[in-house]
Amino acid sequence: MKSKRIKISDNSVRRLSKYIRKLKELESSEVEAISSMELGDMLGLTSSQIRQDLSAFGDFGLPGYGYGVPSLRRGLEDVLGVNSKLTAILVGVGNIGKALIENFPFSKCGVQLLGAFDIDPGIVGERVGEIMVQNRIALDEQLTREAPDITILCVTRDAANDTANYLVERGVTAIWNFTNTEILSPYSPVLVENVHFSDSLQTLCYYINEKNKKRPN
Amino acid sequence: MKSKRIKISDNSVRRLSKYIRKLKELESSEVEAISSMELGDMLGLTSSQIRQDLSAFGDFGLPGYGYGVPSLRRGLEDVLGVNSKLTAILVGVGNIGKALIENFPFSKCGVQLLGAFDIDPGIVGERVGEIMVQNRIALDEQLTREAPDITILCVTRDAANDTANYLVERGVTAIWNFTNTEILSPYSPVLVENVHFSDSLQTLCYYINEKNKKRPN
Repeated sequence: MKSKRIKISDNSVRRLSKYIRKLKELESSEVEAISSMELGDMLGLTSSQIRQDLSAFGDFGLPGYGYGVPSLRRGLEDVLGVNSKLTAILVGVGNIGKALIENFPFSKCGVQLLGAFDIDPGIVGERVGEIMVQNRIALDEQLTREAPDITILCVTRDAANDTANYLVERGVTAIWNFTNTEILSPYSPVLVENVHFSDSLQTLCYYINEKNKKRPN
Repeated sequence: MKSKRIKISDNSVRRLSKYIRKLKELESSEVEAISSMELGDMLGLTSSQIRQDLSAFGDFGLPGYGYGVPSLRRGLEDVLGVNSKLTAILVGVGNIGKALIENFPFSKCGVQLLGAFDIDPGIVGERVGEIMVQNRIALDEQLTREAPDITILCVTRDAANDTANYLVERGVTAIWNFTNTEILSPYSPVLVENVHFSDSLQTLCYYINEKNKKRPN
């Protein structure tokens, strides 16, 4: 299935993983086809939103049948490039770094974790999950030998900007940023995907407060 | 400043924290006023998007002047309820749980962390940051004594659903979910805010693949 080359909004891209997750669930329950209305109900989206998103990504869906669950899932995974086998390294093996190495299903996302690096001699040489933590010299060697597609930045907030600049100077072009702080300028050509825990918590707080306002006193 | 009681989209709510973060940065650079155009440029949004979002949340902005940076920041914080002082507990003190307790600025988000709980005797009684990890009996007591506004769920993926159900039975009404798995039904009245690392990584992969497609071979 060929994906159309039209301008796709960031929100649509972000909904893709949501669709894929739900489709996998449906597949494991052996659901074969689904309408945009049903999918919308499950995800809290309107059916027109779903149809608009999916038509932007390719020619999925058959009139009167809906979407074939396994084929739609595979099609959307192709759009996301889940099978494109990108490489990653992780920099900063503190609690978050360890949690990702030990628990995050990189391979399911089509990403291969090549290595993890830290400057703390207390952690260098230690084994975390299946990865041996290496030092800064090894990081330089890694970047010279094979620049990873993705660098996962898990250093402390204080070290975030200096480390990001150091990495970019050595050829890093995409950063998955767990430092809870803004790194690099928005004009930088480097792709930065921020995991801002505080945005997520503040969104939850907003909904709690809205709910509390409606509650009779 | 009174906020209007109109229907606000989830995307607008999620952009609120983004605005507040940028406004704080501007305040620390002593910028006093900003136009929707300038703010849009900084955040990668259109000025009309900004005006639409901000007008949904309140009467901010003066014609010919733009938005006063400190007053807009305070106004948006009020909308988010940053000053409403919600309480939280954390359940499951593994790597992610530790990372949150040690590094996450709860108080800056207006949230007070009351306690952290785990069933592993190896961690119960240990001090993490300023918190002493307590056992399940203490968790039951906490929930009976004072149901927290927010429960931060950091248990393993396998334990996620059982723990969520257990918590909800004991009166938990809002969960900040770090288990990387879906918990509870979408029809549950419990508020669930998911931190899905994989959605974020897959979004980054999408942009990397798009960039690679454009690259001359």
